[in-house]
Amino acid sequence: MKFEVLKTCGRARLGKLTIGGQVIETPAFMPVGTLGTIRTLEPQEVQELGYRLILGNTYHLSLRPGADVIARFGGLKKFMGWPGALLTDSGGFQIFSLSKIRTVDDDGVTFSAPEDGGRIHRLTPESALEIQARLGSDIAMVLDECPALPAESADLERAVMRTISWARRSADWIHRAADPAGAVFGITQGGLDVGMRKRCLDELIPLDFPGLAIGGLSVGEPSEQMYEVLDRILPDYPADRPRYLMGVGAPGDLETCVRLGVDLFDCVLPTRNARRGQILTRSGPVNIRNSEHAHSEAPPDPVCPCRVCAVYSRAYLRHLFHCDEILGLKLATYHNLYFIADLMKGLRDGIRSCIENSA
Amino acid sequence: MKFEVLKTCGRARLGKLTIGGQVIETPAFMPVGTLGTIRTLEPQEVQELGYRLILGNTYHLSLRPGADVIARFGGLKKFMGWPGALLTDSGGFQIFSLSKIRTVDDDGVTFSAPEDGGRIHRLTPESALEIQARLGSDIAMVLDECPALPAESADLERAVMRTISWARRSADWIHRAADPAGAVFGITQGGLDVGMRKRCLDELIPLDFPGLAIGGLSVGEPSEQMYEVLDRILPDYPADRPRYLMGVGAPGDLETCVRLGVDLFDCVLPTRNARRGQILTRSGPVNIRNSEHAHSEAPPDPVCPCRVCAVYSRAYLRHLFHCDEILGLKLATYHNLYFIADLMKGLRDGIRSCIENSA
Repeated sequence: MKFEVLKTCGRARLGKLTIGGQVIETPAFMPVGTLGTIRTLEPQEVQELGYRLILGNTYHLSLRPGADVIARFGGLKKFMGWPGALLTDSGGFQIFSLSKIRTVDDDGVTFSAPEDGGRIHRLTPESALEIQARLGSDIAMVLDECPALPAESADLERAVMRTISWARRSADWIHRAADPAGAVFGITQGGLDVGMRKRCLDELIPLDFPGLAIGGLSVGEPSEQMYEVLDRILPDYPADRPRYLMGVGAPGDLETCVRLGVDLFDCVLPTRNARRGQILTRSGPVNIRNSEHAHSEAPPDPVCPCRVCAVYSRAYLRHLFHCDEILGLKLATYHNLYFIADLMKGLRDGIRSCIENSA
Repeated sequence: MKFEVLKTCGRARLGKLTIGGQVIETPAFMPVGTLGTIRTLEPQEVQELGYRLILGNTYHLSLRPGADVIARFGGLKKFMGWPGALLTDSGGFQIFSLSKIRTVDDDGVTFSAPEDGGRIHRLTPESALEIQARLGSDIAMVLDECPALPAESADLERAVMRTISWARRSADWIHRAADPAGAVFGITQGGLDVGMRKRCLDELIPLDFPGLAIGGLSVGEPSEQMYEVLDRILPDYPADRPRYLMGVGAPGDLETCVRLGVDLFDCVLPTRNARRGQILTRSGPVNIRNSEHAHSEAPPDPVCPCRVCAVYSRAYLRHLFHCDEILGLKLATYHNLYFIADLMKGLRDGIRSCIENSA
C-alpha cells in the first residue's frame, strides 16, 4: 500500500492511495457490500460508477458463506467477481450494532448468531485478522470495541482500553504473520470525549499502522457533535497516513468531514436508503414513493447525468417502488451511488483547484 | 405489421415478423414484463440478450400505474424505456388465473381488484382494445375467455361461443377505430376438444386478424395432451400468419411446439423459476439453492457462453440465494433468458439448415 497527499486546501487533503493494483484518489467513499454484493448491483456496474475500493463485512461473511468457502475461491474478490480493491471491517462494529446477541471480554467478543441457527461465533483480535486474510482483503481493520453513545465515562474508558490492547495484539499478529496479506488499519475509539480519543490515538500511533480509522462516531449522535470532535482530534493524526471515518455517508457529513481532513468513508446510507425509495438529489433527498411523483416526467434528479436519470422518469421509478418491483431498488441504488461518487469527485476537484494553500 | 415465412422444415417454420420498427426472426420467445419491467432486468439488458419483442399485461398495468399514466408518457415502451416492440395480452388470461375475483357475462368480465383496495375493474372486448391502444402496443390481443381444464363440455362451449362473439366485436372495433394503432391478433379457445378448437378457428379466420393465437393450453394439462391438440389443429391455421402459443415456455415444450408449427411463445417460466433458484441448463434444470453447490466453482451452466456463466460460480449464486440477495434473482433471470434465447436461435438455425423441404 502506498499513500501520498498530493495537495491540501485548509485541512482538506487530496490524496492518492495505491492498493490491490488500484489507484484511488482520496477523499473517497467506499460502497458497502455486506454479504459479497453491493446489494442489487453487479460488480461491473459498481466499477462503471467509478468505484475502485469497496467494503465487505467480516462478521456477516464469516457466517455466510463462511471464510472457508471464500478462501477456497482465492478470496472474496474472486468469489464475487470484483475487479477492484477490497477493505473489510473487523466485526468491531457488530459489538455496537448487535449488542443484544454478544458478550465482550478482554480477550475478544462472542456472538450468538441467529442468522446461523444459533451457532456461537467468536472473534479475537487475532482471529479477526486471520479471517480477513482468508477473505483476501487489501485493507483489513483491527478488532475494536465500538461503544454505544451516550456512554458512561467508565464504559467509554473500558472500551478504549480494550481497543488499545486489541490494537497492540493486532500489531503483534502482523509482525508474527508469515503473510499478513493486505495492509492493516488501526481504529481509534473514545466516543465524544476528546481526551479519551487523543489518548487512544497516542497509543496507536507508535504501532505504525499504515492507516488509521476513526470509529465509534455517526452512531446516533447529532452531526454537530461529531464535527466538533473531528475538528479537535484530526490535526493529531499522522499527516502521511489515510484517515478513514467509519460509517459516514450522508452528503452533508461527507462535505464537512472532507473539509476537516478525512480521506476515506464508508456507509450503507446511499444504498440502504435507495432501497427504501430515498433518492439523493442535488436539491435534497426525494421520497420517490410519494404520490406527487405519480405523473412526473422529470428524471429522478433533474440535473444528474447518470444513466438512470438519462432513461427513467420519477413516475416510472415510483411505479416500480409502488409495485415492489426489484428493478426500482436497483435503479435507485445505481443513482444514489452515482450521486455520491459525483459528490466526492466535486470535493476532490475543489481541493485540486484550491488556491488557498498547497502541500 | 409484416410477416413472411422464409422456410419450412416439416411443419416447423422459419419466419420474419416486422413490427414496431423491429425485425423479429421466428420462432421467437417473448419475455413477460407483467408490470412494465422484465422483473430484475433493465430494458437494455433484455435487448442485450437479443430480445426485440416483449409482453406486457393489460390487466395488471391498467390497475398499476393505470392506462392514463402510461398514455401520458406516450405508451408503455416510452414509460419503461423499452426500445423494442411490445405485445400486450387482453386480460382474458386473468379470467382463468383470477377466477376467484371475477364474474364473466356475455358482454365482458368484471374483476374485484384486491391489489387496488377493492376497486372494481371491468373489461369488454372494446375496452380491452382501447386500453391496449393507450398502452401503445404494437400487437394487441382480443379479449377471450380462457376456461380452466378439465372443463365440462357445456362450459367449454360457452367459453368458445363468448370468445367467438368477442372476437367479432373486436373486429368491428378495429374497423370503427380511427387509429387502431398496432396489429390485433385473434385468440382461439376450445380446451382439449379438437372439434371445438376447429369450430373456433373457422369462425375467426374470416375476421382477418393478422395473427392468431392458441389460448387456453398449458393451464395444467399434461404436455402430451397439449402436443396432441396442437398436432391436430395447427395445420388448419392460415400459413401466412404468425401462430402464437400463449403461456408456453418450458424448454421441452418450446422444442416440440416449434416442430408442430408454432411461431411465437410467451411464458413467465424462465423468469419466475429463476427467481425461485431454478437455473435452466443444457443438462436440465438445476436448483441452485441445494447444498451440493455450496463449494462449486462451476458456472451455473458449464457450457453456457452467457455473461453470467462467464463471471460467476454456482457457489456464489447459491450464496446470493441463500442470503436472499437481490443480485441472485437478477443473475438467474439473465441466464435463464439467455438460455431460452439461445434455444430459440438453435431451433431457427435447425430450420434454416434443414434439407427436408423448403417453402
